[in-house]
Amino acid sequence: MTDVMEHPQGTDLPETASAAVAARLVDALGADMVLAGADVARYCRDWHGDVETGAVAVLRPRSTQDVAQAVKAVAALGLSLVPQGGNTGLVLGATPDDPAGQVVLSLERMTAIRRLDADDFSAVVEAGAVLSELKDKVAEAGLFFPLALGAQGSCRIGGNVSTNAGGINVLRYGMTRELVLGLEVVLPDGSIFDGLSALRKDNRGIDLKQLFIGAEGTLGIVTAVAVKLLPQPDQVATALLGLNALEDAIRLYRRARRDCCDLMSAFEFMPPLAFTLAQEAIPDLPMPMAADYPAYVLMEISGSGLVDVDDLMSRFLEGVMAEGLVVDGVVAASQAQARTLWLFREGMNEGQAKRGRHLRTDVSVPLSRVPDFVREAEAAIHAALPDCTCVSYGHVGDGNVHLNVLPPAGLSREEADARIYQAKTVLNAVLDGFGGSISAEHGIGRLKKPDFEARLQPVKRQLLTSIKAAIDPQGIMNPGCQLNLAAVSG
Amino acid sequence: MTDVMEHPQGTDLPETASAAVAARLVDALGADMVLAGADVARYCRDWHGDVETGAVAVLRPRSTQDVAQAVKAVAALGLSLVPQGGNTGLVLGATPDDPAGQVVLSLERMTAIRRLDADDFSAVVEAGAVLSELKDKVAEAGLFFPLALGAQGSCRIGGNVSTNAGGINVLRYGMTRELVLGLEVVLPDGSIFDGLSALRKDNRGIDLKQLFIGAEGTLGIVTAVAVKLLPQPDQVATALLGLNALEDAIRLYRRARRDCCDLMSAFEFMPPLAFTLAQEAIPDLPMPMAADYPAYVLMEISGSGLVDVDDLMSRFLEGVMAEGLVVDGVVAASQAQARTLWLFREGMNEGQAKRGRHLRTDVSVPLSRVPDFVREAEAAIHAALPDCTCVSYGHVGDGNVHLNVLPPAGLSREEADARIYQAKTVLNAVLDGFGGSISAEHGIGRLKKPDFEARLQPVKRQLLTSIKAAIDPQGIMNPGCQLNLAAVSG
Repeated sequence: MTDVMEHPQGTDLPETASAAVAARLVDALGADMVLAGADVARYCRDWHGDVETGAVAVLRPRSTQDVAQAVKAVAALGLSLVPQGGNTGLVLGATPDDPAGQVVLSLERMTAIRRLDADDFSAVVEAGAVLSELKDKVAEAGLFFPLALGAQGSCRIGGNVSTNAGGINVLRYGMTRELVLGLEVVLPDGSIFDGLSALRKDNRGIDLKQLFIGAEGTLGIVTAVAVKLLPQPDQVATALLGLNALEDAIRLYRRARRDCCDLMSAFEFMPPLAFTLAQEAIPDLPMPMAADYPAYVLMEISGSGLVDVDDLMSRFLEGVMAEGLVVDGVVAASQAQARTLWLFREGMNEGQAKRGRHLRTDVSVPLSRVPDFVREAEAAIHAALPDCTCVSYGHVGDGNVHLNVLPPAGLSREEADARIYQAKTVLNAVLDGFGGSISAEHGIGRLKKPDFEARLQPVKRQLLTSIKAAIDPQGIMNPGCQLNLAAVSG
Repeated sequence: MTDVMEHPQGTDLPETASAAVAARLVDALGADMVLAGADVARYCRDWHGDVETGAVAVLRPRSTQDVAQAVKAVAALGLSLVPQGGNTGLVLGATPDDPAGQVVLSLERMTAIRRLDADDFSAVVEAGAVLSELKDKVAEAGLFFPLALGAQGSCRIGGNVSTNAGGINVLRYGMTRELVLGLEVVLPDGSIFDGLSALRKDNRGIDLKQLFIGAEGTLGIVTAVAVKLLPQPDQVATALLGLNALEDAIRLYRRARRDCCDLMSAFEFMPPLAFTLAQEAIPDLPMPMAADYPAYVLMEISGSGLVDVDDLMSRFLEGVMAEGLVVDGVVAASQAQARTLWLFREGMNEGQAKRGRHLRTDVSVPLSRVPDFVREAEAAIHAALPDCTCVSYGHVGDGNVHLNVLPPAGLSREEADARIYQAKTVLNAVLDGFGGSISAEHGIGRLKKPDFEARLQPVKRQLLTSIKAAIDPQGIMNPGCQLNLAAVSG
């Protein structure tokens, strides 16, 4: 049985009781803020559509003060809160698991950019702003917000902060944590933590905002974010490279790290199957290379001003091709061609989705151990599940591997789920031997909670539960996410 | 009266009682770990020599297990602990303030580099390793640890983490926080938090290590650190530039940020007085330019591999000199010349020290407001204290200003201290109007505690005290640092 199936499904909702409680929320907060009944469904279904559950109501505040009132009203009714941004999370962090006791608080109506200061390279934006809209607004001012991920047209910055989102540019710009200058957070008692300073350097003791980044709404609700901006990179060089082995991808990365210095903005590895999967999703996608190679790297260098990234890319590729580290390569001659190269990376994901239910993982190991890990994990999964297909790709510079496992076509849902669960168990055993992380960038949420808790040192559990009890003594903030509340109150 | 003078001085030590307690520490921990009597003096004097106090004993563990035992023994005796690294802090964070009740725990004997993995761009190092020694060892492996500050020959990495040290390369590489991959910490109950993973990306929920970075030893004792390494920059271009105004330094920074992209590693501004002060400290230091200018910038670009930083610096300076943004400039033609240019920056600090007791500040404001802030703060200080001299310099890219105030020669200690205190009060009032921070990089410690607490939002105080009570319920970790313990227990 997979973890997903342990999640309560929407069919068991106690409809009438919920309606009565929702009515009390309307009394306390006004009809404009409260959705109930059938309207809650879309907030209770996860991004992949694996889980459909329910909630007493959905609250949609328009301001930080609204959020503070909502928190107090929910607590007064003995309910708990599940904060939600764009609902694009991959680990059920924003999906309720107690339909009769939980209220979803959606930040989708708090989308303002409160301040954009190009001279200070900073902006203050409300939690509900959609990432791509923030990026666009910032670009209009000639600046750049580097967070970049597949869901950027739907995910919201508050969710990015709460999950400490990663993405394709982490190797140069860091995770979301490194892009946050300040936060505004509504705490479990309804008080407002105002940490929205956009100061670049502010070393006044313990940095409280760090606690809320990656907390997935378990300690408070992020309502606004001060973000770091950079000059817009007006030059981008993109190349797709064919290699003889995954080991060469690691060697190539180390070489690129030195040769291209801090100008490399993406370095993704992909398996040969990437093209097949991408073409299953996008049938007219052209093959970029004449032959197949055992490993591919999609590499991007970017910069602004007086650096010449095209020249840097040519000189880099000249060197590594002469040495045989890269066997074949295509450099995009235009933005449109670069877009096509990235379509392989994105189409590969869509192609996997088209093949039905499968194991998606997001693990990390030390950079130097990526090839060994992929080889050992794939071998162990092939041995245990000979009819399944492994697709390993990821962000080389971060040691971050998405090792996904596709069951064969034609299985029942139960048969597929059984293979997914077994593949995950086999993979995690190999991962533990490499000292890896079960979550490199997606977070814990509810999906990874059992695997997280099974590996949690007692000292860390004690710290986490003490902090949770200190900040959220009633346990109203996203219970069921990250840690079992039973452990917290116990 | 200055804050410094409120600090208890060593003369009031209850010698006999302390000796008896020190003997009990020897019984519990063995003679090798315990220093007492006259030997404690050098651990109880701050870096600037402004404060000399005392302690029951100094404990010098050799291992993490030793630290855990020391914490338990100290707690059992009803004493508290002041963790100390290289004792180079600037805010009395590691200087005891209760000689009869506190024990200094020095990490100076835990200096091992436990692991250096060049292929993974990471190292694990014990807290007592001296920063410059770590940098040298890493350089031997062809890599680079970017933290760089004046005290690097004496400060220790555990102290750098506990104070979240900044320095001259923050604009490119971030504060210490951004260079830390993992931590090992001995907690107030003597348990060991093992968070030493060097994984680049590890997003397993709340990131506990963040709590201890910048906590100045108030939540636990950092015993080892996993650090992020980079390729060694084998090219460095250094230039000293003369400008018409501080406003031009900000314009120049924005231009350099775009033109030189992520290759700029330092951008410091200095006043005309810098040369006078540097020559007072280093009499044979040559004047680098023919004329005096209202503002100076010391700028560094660095890189490795295929980028050409000398060429980048030339083309950059050509452009900005043609536009008149830079009036005069000297580019170092050798490492020795670069060293001489940096000697002005360092000599300026020594020159201030030679002029006797003075106000040293470390504030930050939004980048775009640096010139207005410096102008307004200097004007307010000149109006209030016409016989004092202001020296404003700092890290432009971080909005970090060291606005120091030198009393005139020939004053008594009390007269100088009175001016220092008044200057600080005037400066902080201006700073508050700019939404600035009273500590951009030095921390809070004991020196800045009154100013910190006076500006602390009740919501933040509540969070800080809850967290302190949750992690250190007995209040044994560096009481008196950052927050008043009375507030914690109350």
